Amino acid sequence: MLAEIITIGDEILIGQVVDSNSAFIADALNKIGIRVGKITSIGDIREQIIAALDDASKYAGLVIMTGGLGPTNDDITKQTLAEYFNTRLVLNTDVLDHIRTLLIPRGIRIHDSNIRQAELPENCSILHNAAGTAQGMLFKKSNTIYISLPGVPFEMKGIMTDHVIPMLKDAFMLDPIQHLTVHTHGLGESAMALKIASWEEQLSPAIKLAYLPSPGILRLRLSVYNTDIVTGNALLETEMSKLRSLISDYIFGYDSDTLEEITGKILRDKGLTLSVAESCTGGKIASMITSVPGCSDYFMGSVIAYSNDSKCKLLGVSHEDIDKNGAVSRLIAEEMARGARCRFNADIAVATTGIAGPSGGTTEKPVGSVWIAVSTTDLTTAERFTFGDNRSRNIQRAAIAALFMLRKVLIKMD
Amino acid sequence: MLAEIITIGDEILIGQVVDSNSAFIADALNKIGIRVGKITSIGDIREQIIAALDDASKYAGLVIMTGGLGPTNDDITKQTLAEYFNTRLVLNTDVLDHIRTLLIPRGIRIHDSNIRQAELPENCSILHNAAGTAQGMLFKKSNTIYISLPGVPFEMKGIMTDHVIPMLKDAFMLDPIQHLTVHTHGLGESAMALKIASWEEQLSPAIKLAYLPSPGILRLRLSVYNTDIVTGNALLETEMSKLRSLISDYIFGYDSDTLEEITGKILRDKGLTLSVAESCTGGKIASMITSVPGCSDYFMGSVIAYSNDSKCKLLGVSHEDIDKNGAVSRLIAEEMARGARCRFNADIAVATTGIAGPSGGTTEKPVGSVWIAVSTTDLTTAERFTFGDNRSRNIQRAAIAALFMLRKVLIKMD
Repeated sequence: MLAEIITIGDEILIGQVVDSNSAFIADALNKIGIRVGKITSIGDIREQIIAALDDASKYAGLVIMTGGLGPTNDDITKQTLAEYFNTRLVLNTDVLDHIRTLLIPRGIRIHDSNIRQAELPENCSILHNAAGTAQGMLFKKSNTIYISLPGVPFEMKGIMTDHVIPMLKDAFMLDPIQHLTVHTHGLGESAMALKIASWEEQLSPAIKLAYLPSPGILRLRLSVYNTDIVTGNALLETEMSKLRSLISDYIFGYDSDTLEEITGKILRDKGLTLSVAESCTGGKIASMITSVPGCSDYFMGSVIAYSNDSKCKLLGVSHEDIDKNGAVSRLIAEEMARGARCRFNADIAVATTGIAGPSGGTTEKPVGSVWIAVSTTDLTTAERFTFGDNRSRNIQRAAIAALFMLRKVLIKMD
Repeated sequence: MLAEIITIGDEILIGQVVDSNSAFIADALNKIGIRVGKITSIGDIREQIIAALDDASKYAGLVIMTGGLGPTNDDITKQTLAEYFNTRLVLNTDVLDHIRTLLIPRGIRIHDSNIRQAELPENCSILHNAAGTAQGMLFKKSNTIYISLPGVPFEMKGIMTDHVIPMLKDAFMLDPIQHLTVHTHGLGESAMALKIASWEEQLSPAIKLAYLPSPGILRLRLSVYNTDIVTGNALLETEMSKLRSLISDYIFGYDSDTLEEITGKILRDKGLTLSVAESCTGGKIASMITSVPGCSDYFMGSVIAYSNDSKCKLLGVSHEDIDKNGAVSRLIAEEMARGARCRFNADIAVATTGIAGPSGGTTEKPVGSVWIAVSTTDLTTAERFTFGDNRSRNIQRAAIAALFMLRKVLIKMD
């Protein structure tokens, strides 16, 4: 079965917000075997909504819409759906009670616009939105299911998880589309393609290979469509083990693994604690590490030492060494890492010092120059990196490189 | 003139990556008066690419595609375009030289797949990609312009900025679509709608109003289409000044302003310095502040004190007070803020301590409980917030609330 996702909202078409809802929905559908044929973004305009529904109904067995269900006048999805499915809006007292229960404890007065959110198309099934006032709606017409969800990401996600996915799983007994993704670091797209060319050539046509590059990381995704779960899994496992033998040195994770989760897992498994000292990455490394639930078991903390004074005062870096070597140098990176390890009483520490840009570069140390150091009780080492001229990308790349260096040292530790 | 954006790549349809390219392109086109009618995402499949081009050509004067131009076998956009525009691929030696110049200094060997990237459709204009090996391509057919760009965001952005936008500006002398966005904090969507109802009712039909909610922030966007720049601006300014008189207490910025930039600007203008102490936000605040170029002028640093020991050792928090009050309390937030201010020798400091979740909550202090404190030499104050049960949203909301508290104190300082 093919599905179409339609996201509704002028804010997407004028580039004010990035549509992240589609990726969540597409991923959730994929996992239960529903393939997304197309994603369409349109404005809050009656004619566009109707045209998009007409187009999708030509091929899709499932249409999931998001957006345009808010309490304000710019949102017209509900009215347009009532028209499209030949029905009228009627007040649903259960929904009104829910809206009251939700808003009153927050000290919000119930306005007419809130009450209007309890008026729903007569012929739809309501998909309860526990987290918000705009309910999900399900319509059926000529063998196609149409679902309308609010555009607020966590409300949409709640309804998808609680209602839409279980309902679709029950209604259609589908073979899931199976993907296996391997995360690598250290080879670019072309070099990787060359390294795995012979393997790629012998790949079964039932498997599709994709290269997914991002700063510092190259992911390879294998996909199998239209097989049962056992056959598909066996196929993926066979090919992955061949691939692994070719590029094992570069692989650091699989599927939804993230570098910060993997690093955390090694720390937890080995019973080691971590601290960080950041200059140019400005909190990015700490922020990545603390995005992982339960990180307080192994993460002690970080010093973001943006000024030279703070490098000395909070991390014990020597003023003299900064004067002699500059703050962006091997020695200072090493002193920062050592300082962070000792001050936080951690087993291992990682430190960054560099020039994120856009200004501050010199001929010798251009924007994008970053020193990264890792310190354990046995050894402190540092490495120099030269990234590009874009501040946010430099911060991102330096944080990823730092976590890689950390992981490399960690996996050798007892 | 209407444009369509087509993003090509299986990774979007299976939900593996979020399409952020479309928002960038839509915003850039809007600024020069080109309205995006639709955004379509399709897979790396010949038939889908051709069908999407056919559909778009029915109404669009401009079609911008991204993706599918990589050196590997899964990318088929270039071949499909050559077929669609009845042409063949020919080796472009200038492009080959560029690829060599780009890869050789990075120590990358030139592979066949790199050379194939210099083979381009004979009848297209090449849009030079300074940052990468996949060139942009421009085709013309029956009054529609078709542009194909690489999917790697910074490469796409470079070609858009250097070539596509200047070319479109020259080719079409269009009235820009004018938007004015105001950023507010402190009112939800319905409460805001009620507060500005009388103003909204009298709005000229030439102006479109949109409510754009996100965690902690509600943006209101006014848009004017199809007027010259002077009339449009006057209309927007008149309405904005009426709106401002209704909600001035809630407004903190306009258009592309971010809270971190605004906070930084106040600090710079007043010649004040800032430091931070973070527990539950784990580096998010520091990371937001250091995303702003030039922040080293006012940002001294941060201590991410995840463990109780580090709160005491690095920020001077009293062990006894933690034992008595718990780490998530008014007193500890205040001690952390005071500690951060003194240790970094800053004029003002902000601190967070809370339970980000998913675990660690109690009946008295459930997940989502956060204390935020601001400290100056004159006064240290703290406020308690209760957010939700989602870790990443709690971190996000706490960081935004902290920057708001900081801003509130800062604007009153000399």
